[in-house]
Amino acid sequence: MSIIDVSSFVAGNWITPGANARPIASAVTGEVIAQAGGTLDYQDMLDHARNVGGPALRKMGFHDRAKMLKALALHLSEHKQALYDLSFDTGATQSDHAFDIDGGIGTLFVFASKGRKEMPDGHVLVDGDVEQFGKTGVFLGQHVFTPLRGVAVHINAYNFPVWGMLEKLAPTLLAGVPAIVKPATATSYVTELCVRLMVESGLLPEGAVQLIAGGTGDLLDRLTCQDVVSFTGSADTALKLRSNPNILANATRFTAEADSLNASILGPDVTPDAPEFDLFIKEVTREMTTKAGQKCTAIRRILAPEARVADVIEALEARLAKTVIGDPAAKDTRMGALVSTDQRADVLDRVATLATEAERVIGDPENFEVHGADREKGAFLPPMLFHCADPDAATKVHETEAFGPVSTIMPYRDTDHAVALANRGQGSLALSLITHDAGVAREVVLGSGAYHGRVYINDRVSMSESTGHGAPMPHLIHGGPGRAGGGEEMGGIRGVKHFMQRTAVQGSPDMIQSIIGQYVPGATPKEAPAHPFTRSFTALEIGETITTAPREVTLEDIEHFAHFTGDTFYAHMDADAAKRNPFFPDRVAHGYLLLSFAAGLFVEPNEGPVLANTGLDGLRFMKPVVAGTKIHVVLTVKKKTRRTGEYGEVRWAVTILDGEDEKVAEYELLTMNAY
Amino acid sequence: MSIIDVSSFVAGNWITPGANARPIASAVTGEVIAQAGGTLDYQDMLDHARNVGGPALRKMGFHDRAKMLKALALHLSEHKQALYDLSFDTGATQSDHAFDIDGGIGTLFVFASKGRKEMPDGHVLVDGDVEQFGKTGVFLGQHVFTPLRGVAVHINAYNFPVWGMLEKLAPTLLAGVPAIVKPATATSYVTELCVRLMVESGLLPEGAVQLIAGGTGDLLDRLTCQDVVSFTGSADTALKLRSNPNILANATRFTAEADSLNASILGPDVTPDAPEFDLFIKEVTREMTTKAGQKCTAIRRILAPEARVADVIEALEARLAKTVIGDPAAKDTRMGALVSTDQRADVLDRVATLATEAERVIGDPENFEVHGADREKGAFLPPMLFHCADPDAATKVHETEAFGPVSTIMPYRDTDHAVALANRGQGSLALSLITHDAGVAREVVLGSGAYHGRVYINDRVSMSESTGHGAPMPHLIHGGPGRAGGGEEMGGIRGVKHFMQRTAVQGSPDMIQSIIGQYVPGATPKEAPAHPFTRSFTALEIGETITTAPREVTLEDIEHFAHFTGDTFYAHMDADAAKRNPFFPDRVAHGYLLLSFAAGLFVEPNEGPVLANTGLDGLRFMKPVVAGTKIHVVLTVKKKTRRTGEYGEVRWAVTILDGEDEKVAEYELLTMNAY
Repeated sequence: MSIIDVSSFVAGNWITPGANARPIASAVTGEVIAQAGGTLDYQDMLDHARNVGGPALRKMGFHDRAKMLKALALHLSEHKQALYDLSFDTGATQSDHAFDIDGGIGTLFVFASKGRKEMPDGHVLVDGDVEQFGKTGVFLGQHVFTPLRGVAVHINAYNFPVWGMLEKLAPTLLAGVPAIVKPATATSYVTELCVRLMVESGLLPEGAVQLIAGGTGDLLDRLTCQDVVSFTGSADTALKLRSNPNILANATRFTAEADSLNASILGPDVTPDAPEFDLFIKEVTREMTTKAGQKCTAIRRILAPEARVADVIEALEARLAKTVIGDPAAKDTRMGALVSTDQRADVLDRVATLATEAERVIGDPENFEVHGADREKGAFLPPMLFHCADPDAATKVHETEAFGPVSTIMPYRDTDHAVALANRGQGSLALSLITHDAGVAREVVLGSGAYHGRVYINDRVSMSESTGHGAPMPHLIHGGPGRAGGGEEMGGIRGVKHFMQRTAVQGSPDMIQSIIGQYVPGATPKEAPAHPFTRSFTALEIGETITTAPREVTLEDIEHFAHFTGDTFYAHMDADAAKRNPFFPDRVAHGYLLLSFAAGLFVEPNEGPVLANTGLDGLRFMKPVVAGTKIHVVLTVKKKTRRTGEYGEVRWAVTILDGEDEKVAEYELLTMNAY
Repeated sequence: MSIIDVSSFVAGNWITPGANARPIASAVTGEVIAQAGGTLDYQDMLDHARNVGGPALRKMGFHDRAKMLKALALHLSEHKQALYDLSFDTGATQSDHAFDIDGGIGTLFVFASKGRKEMPDGHVLVDGDVEQFGKTGVFLGQHVFTPLRGVAVHINAYNFPVWGMLEKLAPTLLAGVPAIVKPATATSYVTELCVRLMVESGLLPEGAVQLIAGGTGDLLDRLTCQDVVSFTGSADTALKLRSNPNILANATRFTAEADSLNASILGPDVTPDAPEFDLFIKEVTREMTTKAGQKCTAIRRILAPEARVADVIEALEARLAKTVIGDPAAKDTRMGALVSTDQRADVLDRVATLATEAERVIGDPENFEVHGADREKGAFLPPMLFHCADPDAATKVHETEAFGPVSTIMPYRDTDHAVALANRGQGSLALSLITHDAGVAREVVLGSGAYHGRVYINDRVSMSESTGHGAPMPHLIHGGPGRAGGGEEMGGIRGVKHFMQRTAVQGSPDMIQSIIGQYVPGATPKEAPAHPFTRSFTALEIGETITTAPREVTLEDIEHFAHFTGDTFYAHMDADAAKRNPFFPDRVAHGYLLLSFAAGLFVEPNEGPVLANTGLDGLRFMKPVVAGTKIHVVLTVKKKTRRTGEYGEVRWAVTILDGEDEKVAEYELLTMNAY
C-alpha cells in the first residue's frame, strides 16, 4: 500500500507535504499509512481568503449560501463511501462513522435549511426590534449583523475529521466568511479527502475554503480584528492559542471548545426496575465506547444515588462485557481503537492519576481481548470504570480527563449534592440527567445550568426520539463555560453570528429601511402604482402603500357578528359590564370583527398574484372601537422572501386607524405571492 | 476644606483609605481634595458576593430585580444635586453632568422598564424557539439563560464616574449577579458617593454591590468560570488585564470597551448650504468639547470630501471660537478641565505624535484663555484640530488617540475611500455619517459595519430627535471590535445576557415546561377544573386545557361572511379560481372566519376575570378548510406575566383542528386577566 501524501490547499493549489513531513500511523495496524506537514505561505492564504474568498461569498446572499451548503451536503452524501473506507484506519467503526461522516453532512443540511427559513433573502441580518428614542420616531435604532471581512481559522481535533470540519464550516460559509481549515494531523487524511470532494464539486467560490495539513506556523500572528479563531481540542492547547499576544492585542475573536469532565446523573427517583435505569446504563455504555471514548462530550463522571452505586456498577459490568473490541471494519466490532499508541499511552497516564483517588472496578488494560487486530500494534484499550467513594474530598476525578473509554462512578446524597458535584467540573459541555421527575429536572437546571453548555434530560417518555448525551445537535449550542473552553458553536443561526459583527445602526426610518431592505415604520411612503394585490411578487416594492376608504362599525355589526360567530363576550354585548371593565368605555367591537372588516377594505377580490393569506404576526389591539367609529386601513409592503421558483412570502404592515387617525390595531400579515 | 476619605465597601462595611492611600487633586484648582487606596481582603469580597449577594439576588425574579432598579433610579434622582456638586472638581460642567449623572440614572430606568416588558416574570430567560428533533415531538430542545453563580467585577474609567458604574450595574443586577465595582481612582470620590446613596437607600440586598476605592490587588487571580470582568478604559490596560493567566486558564468572561479612533464622515452629497453641513459641524464640535474630549466615543477622525475640507475647517474654527473654557461650575463655561494635569501631559504627548503626520490648524495649547480658573494649576486645554493631507500614507492618525479635545480632519475621494479610511482604525465604538442619501448610508454600513460597534447616521429628517454621535444608548450595544476592545455592553436585554449562561436544555415537553415555567406543546395536558375564562389570573395553571365542541363551517357561512365583511377574495367565492390556485382544493373559508368561529367556541361570555383580548401572535394557517368541515378548538394556558397590582397578561396556545384532528390553524392569544 502506498503512503498517502496529505496535501494542503493553498490559494487554489494543492501543496504536497514538505521535507519535514510527519508520518501518520494506522490506529489499527500501527503501520505508516500517510504523511503530512511542511511550511506554507500563510500570508498568501490569508490574502487569498480576504481578497478573493471573502468578496465572492459576500456577493452571495444568505439564501444563495444556504443553497450552496445544501448542494455540498448532497455531493458529499454521494461520495460518503470513500470517506467511510478511509476512516477505518483512524480506529473508527462503521457506527462511529455515523457520527462523524453522516453527522457532518447532516449538519450541512440543517444549516442549509435554517439559512433558508430563518435568515433573510439578502445581505444584512436584522437583530431584534427597532428602538425608538424620541416621540415622533424620526430617529431610530436597529441592530444588524454583517459578515466579518476577514477569515475564520478552524483548528480542529483529531476525533471527528469530517464532522469537526463541517460543523464549523457550515455557519462560517453561511455567514459569508472564508475559512482556513487546520485538522489535527493524526486524522488529516480523512479531512483532506473531504476538502478535495468539496473543491472538486465546483460548488465553492474560489478562496472560500483552504486547508492546512500540518502546522499553522505564524498564521495566528497575522490575524486582525476581522478574523476568528475557532478551536476544538484540549484545554492546554486552547490556553496556549488563546494566549497568543497578537490575538490578545487585536481582540481577535477566539472561541474554544475543549474536553471537559462531563457528568451524568442518575435521578434520585430512579429505581433499578424503572425504565430510566436501563436507559441510564445504555447512555453511559454508549458514551464510554463510541469512538473508544474519544469524544469531548463523553461521560467522565457518573453520579448515582448512594444506594444505587452497586446496582449501576453491576449493570454496567454486564453490558460492557458484551463490547467486542477489535478491527473497526469488522461487522461485529462494537469498539475500535484509539487514534494512536501515543494517545493510548496518554490515557494510561491519566488512568494512573485517577487510580490515586478511585478504584478500578471494571476493565483491565493488561488483560482484554482484541478481535481481528494486534492488541499491541493497534491502539486498543478496554472500557474502564473507576469508583470514587468520597467525591467531596477527591479533586483529580473532577479535573483529570482520560480521553478514552474511561469513566468514574461516584455516589451522591441528594439532588443538591449531585448538582454540587456536577459543578465541580468547573464548566462542561454536557450534563445529563436521567429522571422521570420534572421537579428534579427544574432543580438541576436552575442549580447547574450556569456550569454546563447543554443539559440533556431523558426518561421513558423522550427516549424513543432522544439524540444521546454525547451528540451535539446543529440546532443547539455546543460548547460550555470554563474548562469546556468558554465558547459556543452551532446553535442554529446563533452559530452563524459568531462570524458576523453586530452593529447598532441609528438613523431616520428611510436610512434604516435602505440598509435592512425591509419597510420601517415612518419611512417615506411610496404610493402603489396599482392595488398591490394586482402586482407580482417581483414587481412589489418595499414600502409600497395603499390607504383604504373608511367603513363605519355599527352597533348592528357588533350584534350581528356576535350572534353569527357565537362570541357574545360581555364587553361586546353589555354596556354596563363593559363600563365596569378597566379598558372599555362602552360596548366595543370584537377584535376579529375589525380584522375581518380590515380585510374587506384592503383585499382585491379578483384572481391575481396573491395566492393565500398564510398567517399573521404581532397583532396588538391598541384602542377600543365603539359603535359609530369609522375605521380605515393602511397597508404597506414590509418584506419579501423568495420561497420557491414560483412564489414567495410577502409580509405586509397593516394598521387599522379610526376617524381621528389614531391606531386601533397593528399587525403583520403574511401572504404567498406568485412571481 | 477637609480631604475626602474615599472608602471601599467590603462585605457590608465601609473601609477608609489605608496608609498607602493616594492623593486626588481637583481638576480645576490642582489642590488635593481626596485620598483613596489601601489593601483589602479580596477573597472576603468574593465570598460575600458569591455566598450572600448572589443567592439573595437569584431568589428574586427578573421583575423583582427590575423594580429594584427603578426604585434605585428614583432614589438617585432625588439626590442628584449632591452628585452634581461633587462632580465639578472632576473638571465636568453642568452639561457634562447630564451625560454622566442623568445619563446613568436614565440607564437604570431603561433597564428597569425593559426588564419588566421584555423579560419573564420568573427566574429562567427563554432564548429562541423550541427545537424538535424527531417526528412525534417527545424530545425537544430549548435554550435558556440562567444567572452566573459568581460575581461581576466592573473596572471603570475615570471619565464617567456615575454612568460608567450604572450602565454596567443595571444589566448585572437585572441578571441576578452581584457586582464588585472598581472605579478609576481619579474620580472615585463621585462613584463612592453614588454607591453610598444606593447602599443607604436599603434597596439593595446585602452583598449585591461592593466597592473598591484603590487597586484590585490579586482579585483577578481568584476568579473562576462563573465570574465576569467588565473593563472600560485604555487599550493598553485592557490588554494587560485580558492577559491575566488565571482569566485565560479559566476562560473567565472578559469584556472590554476601550477608547478607539472613532470617525465621522461628512457625506459626499452634503454641500455647505445643506442643513447636513451645519449638523456635521455641530456634532463634531460637541464631540470635541463635551467632557473636554475625554469620551471613548469622541470623534478623533473627521473624514470630509476633498472639496469640502477647507469649508469644514473654516466652519469649525468659527464655532470652536465660541467655546468658553474655564471653571466648570460657572454658567457660561462650555468646556471644563481635563481630569488631571497628568492627563493633560499625556494628551500633549499624543498631540506631538499627531503633529508628525498632520498640521495643527485650530487651537494652540500655549495660547488660549481660561475663565475663572488658573490655566496652569487646572488641567485645561483648548480644542485642537489637525489636518492630515495624506491619510493613506499616514499611520499615526489612525492609531494614536489623544484623549482630550483633539481631532484630525482628512480628505477622502469617494465613498469607498471614506469606508476604507474609517476601517483603518481597526475597530471602533462609533462611526458617524452625516448624509441625506440613503444609498450612501447602505454603502457605508455594508462596507464598514464589521469594523464598528455603532454606526450613527444623521440628517435633516432625524436631527430633531437624534441622540448624538457620542452618546451610547442603553437600548443599543456599546462596544466594538478590535481596538475598541472586542466587547459589547448594554444593548437592552442583550447586555443582561453577558451575566448569564446560555444552556441548551433537551428533554420531554413536560421537562422543558417545568424548567421554563410556560406551556410546551406536547406536555401532559391538565384538565381545567372550570372554564379557564372563569378562573382568576392567580388560579390559572400553566398547561390548563379545554377542548371545545365542534362547529361545522358551511358554504352559507363563507358566503355570508364574505358579503358581511366585504372580503370577497376569489379563493372564497369562485371554485374554479380556487382550484387553479396551488394551495386550495376548492372554495375555502376565510382565515378570519375561522378565528372568529374559534373565539365563538372558546369564549365564556359572562363577566369574569378575562378583561380584554389584547392581541395575537404567530398565527399560521396550516390546512385549508372547505365547506362542510367541522372545526373544534384546543385552548391552553401558555404563559402568565404580572403587569400591575390588579391584572396580568395571559398567553394562550390556541389550536384549531378539523374533523380528522389535523391542525387547521395555530396561534398565541393574548388576554388581560384580573387577579
